[in-house]
Amino acid sequence: MEETDDPANLARIRSSFAKQGLMSTLGATLGDISRGFVEISLSPSPTISQQHGFVHAGAISAVADTAAGYAALSTMAPGRGVLTTEFKINLLAPAVGSRFIARGKVLKAGKTLTLAQAEVFAEKDGALRLIAFLTATLMAIEGRDGIND
Amino acid sequence: MEETDDPANLARIRSSFAKQGLMSTLGATLGDISRGFVEISLSPSPTISQQHGFVHAGAISAVADTAAGYAALSTMAPGRGVLTTEFKINLLAPAVGSRFIARGKVLKAGKTLTLAQAEVFAEKDGALRLIAFLTATLMAIEGRDGIND
Amino acid sequence: MEETDDPANLARIRSSFAKQGLMSTLGATLGDISRGFVEISLSPSPTISQQHGFVHAGAISAVADTAAGYAALSTMAPGRGVLTTEFKINLLAPAVGSRFIARGKVLKAGKTLTLAQAEVFAEKDGALRLIAFLTATLMAIEGRDGIND
Amino acid sequence: MEETDDPANLARIRSSFAKQGLMSTLGATLGDISRGFVEISLSPSPTISQQHGFVHAGAISAVADTAAGYAALSTMAPGRGVLTTEFKINLLAPAVGSRFIARGKVLKAGKTLTLAQAEVFAEKDGALRLIAFLTATLMAIEGRDGIND
Repeated sequence: MEETDDPANLARIRSSFAKQGLMSTLGATLGDISRGFVEISLSPSPTISQQHGFVHAGAISAVADTAAGYAALSTMAPGRGVLTTEFKINLLAPAVGSRFIARGKVLKAGKTLTLAQAEVFAEKDGALRLIAFLTATLMAIEGRDGIND
Repeated sequence: MEETDDPANLARIRSSFAKQGLMSTLGATLGDISRGFVEISLSPSPTISQQHGFVHAGAISAVADTAAGYAALSTMAPGRGVLTTEFKINLLAPAVGSRFIARGKVLKAGKTLTLAQAEVFAEKDGALRLIAFLTATLMAIEGRDGIND
Repeated sequence: MEETDDPANLARIRSSFAKQGLMSTLGATLGDISRGFVEISLSPSPTISQQHGFVHAGAISAVADTAAGYAALSTMAPGRGVLTTEFKINLLAPAVGSRFIARGKVLKAGKTLTLAQAEVFAEKDGALRLIAFLTATLMAIEGRDGIND
Repeated sequence: MEETDDPANLARIRSSFAKQGLMSTLGATLGDISRGFVEISLSPSPTISQQHGFVHAGAISAVADTAAGYAALSTMAPGRGVLTTEFKINLLAPAVGSRFIARGKVLKAGKTLTLAQAEVFAEKDGALRLIAFLTATLMAIEGRDGIND
């Protein structure tokens, strides 16, 4: 079965995202999704700031990791879930802007381990500027304690 | 001037941490601090969960990055601030426990770039178990737009 | 002055590469270069193997880091040099093939720090397969001990 | 069976190291080894240099990755092998010195994935100085094509 943009699989991602308490707490929202690609938006707020008033690198990392993770999940068969085993993020500029967009994409899907990336852009005056770049390894989980997303 | 455990410098970290909206939103609290070492605690809550009910890797990463960053700041002279330029985190086990403790430590302090690490432990039945390990590069900032922490 | 594909700048990269004893020892050769892009090839050999007979991850990393570094250098004005401050490499499959090609590319050029990536492909039966992905931070060096490449 | 410093297991590491063509080509030698700890030495030479005459970051990374990998292997039962799935290295200072020593150590041994670190020191006038820090994920391999080291 081809899973490309399988509606049930994309619905699984929307449903899983809705269960992430942290995304809701950060005010993050799911944008476009397709097989191997997931977009998440974040708005600046004092509740997610660091000490200089910029959006905290931890909030940027959380949405970037989540976008990469769901991009990986979108390529997997129903019944499988994912856990991040590691990620690196390069923070290229302070997170200043009217909105932040993390775009997750699969670089290589594997049986056990999948490599995904996420680019994070800051929107300012209608233009997008790359402010962070993440690569993450996701481990596929199957048949463990009901983990299937 | 030796800055070792200089009270003014440690007070600067407590004051800076209090300005981080994200730490407050996550419910993170500052623990022991000394020159080159900073501890942050986090309690599990549905507001910081991922889809399986574990604490989100993004929340763990945020406190780990913050502990590493303040460990770096604690070694710097007054008037200098820090920005994270990159970090990698290895997530060794799902974040399950009654409490999470991130311990940041400086590995090498440099003029421009400082390398710090953070270990994150999960407390369960009184025992601590390593669940994550982060290394981060912090860039010292001086005289830029009032950034001094 | 526009530096795009400036012949003098590209000549500087060829000349610098020729000074790298390690590249010569590994048998690596420089391929296509243009502003922000550098390609390096490596042939398999017992002299660069690991214990299972595959090409050693250390050799793959060395050419990937070098491709990323020269991609960064290709965007810099004459008189500036680069040093790698950190890199992460994800190794997606054992390095098996008739040839390995590392393609370095700048993701974001900055005044002090530049982020570059490198993809490494294994050639087998005429097809290219992604086997490794690297991101690296390069620091620009100017006026230090004659470092200008 | 306790494997602590099991002589057969340590002999397996010496034998495996001897099969690594790259280590021989770089002139690297195995030092102290014990369960969860492996030391590798490297001497500077024009054959492993980068363009400024320092030892190439790729050579430093190769010995650091190898030290981390064998530290992981030293904790595994006979019949299992390891492959590096990713590593990050922070390069803290140019590799200048009379000798370089990479010390690999296991941070967390897992069933499938093991996290190890390596510190690399430069020796100069009898003193050791930390010049690089690596963390690596090693995947345990069993029963695949005779991979058992």
